[in-house]
Amino acid sequence: MAVVDLNSDIGESFGAYRIGMDDEIVKYVSSANIACGFHAGDPVVMERTVGLCEKNGAAVGAHPGFPDLMGFGRRNMDISLSDIKSYIIYQIGALKAFAESHGMKLQHVKAHGALYNMAAADEKLADAIAQAIASVDKNLICVAMANTAMQKAAEKAGLKFACEVFADRNVNPDGTLVSRKLPNAMIHDEDLACRRVLRMVKEGMVEAVDGSHIKVRADTICVHGDNPQAVEFALRLRKVLEENGVKIAPMASFL
Amino acid sequence: MAVVDLNSDIGESFGAYRIGMDDEIVKYVSSANIACGFHAGDPVVMERTVGLCEKNGAAVGAHPGFPDLMGFGRRNMDISLSDIKSYIIYQIGALKAFAESHGMKLQHVKAHGALYNMAAADEKLADAIAQAIASVDKNLICVAMANTAMQKAAEKAGLKFACEVFADRNVNPDGTLVSRKLPNAMIHDEDLACRRVLRMVKEGMVEAVDGSHIKVRADTICVHGDNPQAVEFALRLRKVLEENGVKIAPMASFL
Amino acid sequence: MAVVDLNSDIGESFGAYRIGMDDEIVKYVSSANIACGFHAGDPVVMERTVGLCEKNGAAVGAHPGFPDLMGFGRRNMDISLSDIKSYIIYQIGALKAFAESHGMKLQHVKAHGALYNMAAADEKLADAIAQAIASVDKNLICVAMANTAMQKAAEKAGLKFACEVFADRNVNPDGTLVSRKLPNAMIHDEDLACRRVLRMVKEGMVEAVDGSHIKVRADTICVHGDNPQAVEFALRLRKVLEENGVKIAPMASFL
Amino acid sequence: MAVVDLNSDIGESFGAYRIGMDDEIVKYVSSANIACGFHAGDPVVMERTVGLCEKNGAAVGAHPGFPDLMGFGRRNMDISLSDIKSYIIYQIGALKAFAESHGMKLQHVKAHGALYNMAAADEKLADAIAQAIASVDKNLICVAMANTAMQKAAEKAGLKFACEVFADRNVNPDGTLVSRKLPNAMIHDEDLACRRVLRMVKEGMVEAVDGSHIKVRADTICVHGDNPQAVEFALRLRKVLEENGVKIAPMASFL
Repeated sequence: MAVVDLNSDIGESFGAYRIGMDDEIVKYVSSANIACGFHAGDPVVMERTVGLCEKNGAAVGAHPGFPDLMGFGRRNMDISLSDIKSYIIYQIGALKAFAESHGMKLQHVKAHGALYNMAAADEKLADAIAQAIASVDKNLICVAMANTAMQKAAEKAGLKFACEVFADRNVNPDGTLVSRKLPNAMIHDEDLACRRVLRMVKEGMVEAVDGSHIKVRADTICVHGDNPQAVEFALRLRKVLEENGVKIAPMASFL
Repeated sequence: MAVVDLNSDIGESFGAYRIGMDDEIVKYVSSANIACGFHAGDPVVMERTVGLCEKNGAAVGAHPGFPDLMGFGRRNMDISLSDIKSYIIYQIGALKAFAESHGMKLQHVKAHGALYNMAAADEKLADAIAQAIASVDKNLICVAMANTAMQKAAEKAGLKFACEVFADRNVNPDGTLVSRKLPNAMIHDEDLACRRVLRMVKEGMVEAVDGSHIKVRADTICVHGDNPQAVEFALRLRKVLEENGVKIAPMASFL
Repeated sequence: MAVVDLNSDIGESFGAYRIGMDDEIVKYVSSANIACGFHAGDPVVMERTVGLCEKNGAAVGAHPGFPDLMGFGRRNMDISLSDIKSYIIYQIGALKAFAESHGMKLQHVKAHGALYNMAAADEKLADAIAQAIASVDKNLICVAMANTAMQKAAEKAGLKFACEVFADRNVNPDGTLVSRKLPNAMIHDEDLACRRVLRMVKEGMVEAVDGSHIKVRADTICVHGDNPQAVEFALRLRKVLEENGVKIAPMASFL
Repeated sequence: MAVVDLNSDIGESFGAYRIGMDDEIVKYVSSANIACGFHAGDPVVMERTVGLCEKNGAAVGAHPGFPDLMGFGRRNMDISLSDIKSYIIYQIGALKAFAESHGMKLQHVKAHGALYNMAAADEKLADAIAQAIASVDKNLICVAMANTAMQKAAEKAGLKFACEVFADRNVNPDGTLVSRKLPNAMIHDEDLACRRVLRMVKEGMVEAVDGSHIKVRADTICVHGDNPQAVEFALRLRKVLEENGVKIAPMASFL
């Protein structure tokens, strides 16, 4: 039986500021990437978010980012590799304590925003991140896109790796995402998006923008929870997957 | 054979800013209280400081404080108990990850500055801190002054408790510190300070400011590392203790 | 002809985080209190907010608060008077630059949250704030509740003072607000709220919770913009005032 | 009579953290670049530093940087131009308020660290900075190296421009600094450094690393105050200049 994980970035609120429909999206995902207080999130939000995951049966992962709350971690920063390692260890440790205080195990780590994007292409940065993860706990799963520097680094560091795919994004023939600067970056047709995900999970194939059909490994599908339509789409995708015999489960259960 | 722990607050540098003679004082203490990034310290400093402790054989503890870098955690803040719990869990978790990535175990937790002082008197605050510590790891030792709300709270939460005494401070007949606003708050005579500590450790007694002799439990002695004289005093105190048959060892080894 | 100012706290968003219906409420107020980056707001938000005020003809004021973004400036902090002075100068200066770069004049200063509340009762704190305001510009108007330490301090510092009243709050016989901990703190009946404001403006009188009628000076009325009902109420209050011959204008035009 | 300005970056302390021998170096410079709370400095430090300048007759300038206290503003950040403009306006405004509260006029603006370096080469970034400065006050002098994007941008924005030279750095034949990665980046011979500065000021010429003699405009010479030798060198350079008939004065007095 086919199995896949659904993940979403949650816990991105901060103090009096609320972002994301965490209470809703957490019902539909099997894994949550929780902000750790650098680009978003704070200790109170982390506690609440881990509690939400516990209640809804979602596995928890750390979602570390750049120390840039004002930029939400979306701006490239030129930080030394050894500093990055410390930033990652710090953020993972903070979230791990919340998980453990709830009797949960930290399942995975997925870099956020600009750090995620930079680590896809920069081998040294990816190595620093992977080494940081491994230094905290060798059993943590590293989540990133397939065929990236991050995947190579995770494997080099002896970490399990989960390939992330995006339900709403078109891909190039080499498997990379079509740039958001191009008009066809996004897939707006939800039926199509669901069919594509189903095929990725069951056949390991997807159609690229040039019409070619390429191999893809989909361990975990990223869905969003920032607005009602996104949440509705997550529910729909979940239904489509389950109706077609795909089990949705935390990545640690099958990787 | 008498045994006691020597502790010092270290790892209080931040970014390009250096505070404290960490490289020196770490040689003379058996336990280090390491700032966790809220009132002082940052991930890079934490990594370096834990490494310093590992190299010098000092046990590591978390030194959580208020989220007030500009005030160095020395200003009272009126924070809700549930928020405080999350702040403590966050900070302990962050430091714990650095300890574990160095193959070390986190030994203890000691609140910093205004949080330490407030928790000495405020039972609810002390309970929140103790519960936060226990929720991360029941084996963590809570460090604070004897006969404080913090001691009661630690015991209520099932935590081991280490009584902290100060080598350079006079005490009132009830065991509390003489206020820094009074002229006789500090003991400037280093010989006297050493003799007092020795007696506290070997006899469990100390002379209060009114000339009375009171019972005191001294599990760990706080020494400072901010300036050359402080470091020299720590070395001297260590020698006096060892020459008088007192073993200096991390608190976890005898509590 | 009676005249009054309507003010609202705006510009409280931060980075990717949005709070408040600024685009709406700014249409109905004559003065805006703009967060300055300590408890809320950031430079980008300040620039946008001042632009919004310019476009809508609202006068701009600084809304300085405690350096506590995580607590939204709502938590008491025990900060030295000289530090407070510097915090206030810094925040006023930052906002003043945005105002002046838009060709506007900074009109007033109103402390935020816990700082506003503490300064109402603490004379030394109020003096520090008033002196800070005066040191930047003697022509800035200080906004606070009547008969508070802040009013006394403003007058002592030679500042113009604007008495702030709240449309939705009951008052004690001494003019102070009924505590939010009490069930009758708020006035939920919008008709009643409008009638009370109208009477405060036109007669300088209001009915206190004990049924007595007390004098009140209402220079500026605080309205909220956090939710659609609040915005609708502001519009309604504005209409009621105008239909009853009250002119709504920035406080600087009549103080 | 030849005249030149001596400038130094000061006010870089933060909270309990002290950096720089501000009390000493301020005696020898005619202009001070004061950190504004983003990469370094805080309101209390700014107040103290402006007071120090007032007492010692040094003109004050804003030294804005990236919002990166942990990295001391030395790390490149990829920030949108409109955000940069707001960051600059904010920081200038904050410092301007301290200057004005001391009855001083803000004289100049010099970007800090990574922002200074990036703006030397990036025309759009330089334009954003220059426009931000001009939007606060058209009379502010922009300080940067000659023949950089920053100079062009300042002139385009109608700002006065002060060419900054470094007493301790070798230059390439095109006037740019020899990279710090190269062994001959620094001039360690203090006699030579003084002679070079004297020639730059009196003749407008300097010897480049290849032995060629190039034109240079030296309006203001950057000296450091981080350590006793640096301060001593500043004193020495000042003496050499004065003994050779060069007057040292704030840039605004002769530009």
